[in-house]
Amino acid sequence: MPNIRLILEYNGQNFHGWQVQPDVRTIQGELQRVLEMCLGEKVRGLQASGRTDAGVHAAAQVAHFHVDTLPDLGKLVRSVSSLLKNEVAIKDARVVPDSFHSMRDAVRKQYSYRIYYRPHPPVLDYGRVWHISGPLDVERMCKEAPLLVGTHDFTTFQGSGCGARTTVKTIYESELIVEPPYLTYRVVGSGFLKQMVRNIVGTLVALGRGRYGDTSVVEMLEWKDRRKAAETAQPYGLCLDWVKYSG
Amino acid sequence: MPNIRLILEYNGQNFHGWQVQPDVRTIQGELQRVLEMCLGEKVRGLQASGRTDAGVHAAAQVAHFHVDTLPDLGKLVRSVSSLLKNEVAIKDARVVPDSFHSMRDAVRKQYSYRIYYRPHPPVLDYGRVWHISGPLDVERMCKEAPLLVGTHDFTTFQGSGCGARTTVKTIYESELIVEPPYLTYRVVGSGFLKQMVRNIVGTLVALGRGRYGDTSVVEMLEWKDRRKAAETAQPYGLCLDWVKYSG
Repeated sequence: MPNIRLILEYNGQNFHGWQVQPDVRTIQGELQRVLEMCLGEKVRGLQASGRTDAGVHAAAQVAHFHVDTLPDLGKLVRSVSSLLKNEVAIKDARVVPDSFHSMRDAVRKQYSYRIYYRPHPPVLDYGRVWHISGPLDVERMCKEAPLLVGTHDFTTFQGSGCGARTTVKTIYESELIVEPPYLTYRVVGSGFLKQMVRNIVGTLVALGRGRYGDTSVVEMLEWKDRRKAAETAQPYGLCLDWVKYSG
Repeated sequence: MPNIRLILEYNGQNFHGWQVQPDVRTIQGELQRVLEMCLGEKVRGLQASGRTDAGVHAAAQVAHFHVDTLPDLGKLVRSVSSLLKNEVAIKDARVVPDSFHSMRDAVRKQYSYRIYYRPHPPVLDYGRVWHISGPLDVERMCKEAPLLVGTHDFTTFQGSGCGARTTVKTIYESELIVEPPYLTYRVVGSGFLKQMVRNIVGTLVALGRGRYGDTSVVEMLEWKDRRKAAETAQPYGLCLDWVKYSG
């Protein structure tokens, strides 16, 4: 029973996130439907490295599934990409060892969050950015972002209903890149809690707006209370850039 | 009768280009309608620096129009951008001398054309790029692009039905920038004939595909025959970046 690994690009704008839910259009649901249509057989255990939320994009999400018969992977890639045109594309498909699991084996991920920091609303980047017309203390935000690097308890930035076993995560890189009109928050970590990146961005923006005074994100980590931190940033600015595996 | 200059960003995907035409949705038509709705009076002589084709985008198109009463420009910017949400935004609006004319006075323009050069189709850049799955001799294309710099007769790259008085134009910059998965053709010129940038890109791609053998774009200019050059590149990859004025 071959185990197939997919690398996926998707625009999350018109999906209710990755995970199958009744009566709504999800990436997992659409992909499973189209894979089964192309393969003419049941697809088992389709999972991704993580469940992206409604509106969140991916440049290179990793997923895997099992099938009974080894398909023509080149043909599968073309068929699926053509059926889910403009919304989901398979960038790569290959047979991997049976033990490979896209979620369990992921050791590192990068997310990017783009803020469009200009008075006028975005047009060419619509659906891909969070529009903030300012003013923001960008220098302060740039100083705070790297303070999250390290191993911390991220309860303060954990979305409600998160089923993670542990709230301790390791962040390897955390920075705000200023390239007007964009402010891009880029973060690399061992894993992320539900809405963690969006909660961090929401808090960085609140700091940039002068809320919380001199309080630093390091002190906020100590709060271990989601209600004290800022609102979750809009989903549209977020993109899962890549996922790395051990070995 | 104040003369108002606008700087506009637009996504050309769902428009039949800039210029008003009967029974189709155009940027000029929509903008005029919405400006008159916001101002409560007729708008006269709305024109842009040039007429972008159907599907072509602009990051900073320049336009101007006359009104009887000087409006609150801040309010106008917000109202128009909110009514043409996600499709057209006014980035700047100001009163300019009565003599200013967005088309006649333009002295320099930059266009960018983005090719998405990868086997799988674009998703996050859908509607903003021309997808080419290869193979292309990118090195050759990079060498040819700058040969167009200078003052030349561009009849070879002129779209049919172009009403320009002269086919001689000056190109100041012409280069292909390689940033995988993108190949971006960037060109700065005194002015451009109808579909000139798309015809140049179509020809560069044909050269990259080995069509035309060793024939260079310099020899092609001598042909002065549109039919001998390659197909027009898709409109979606093209964006008017900026327009400069004398003085």
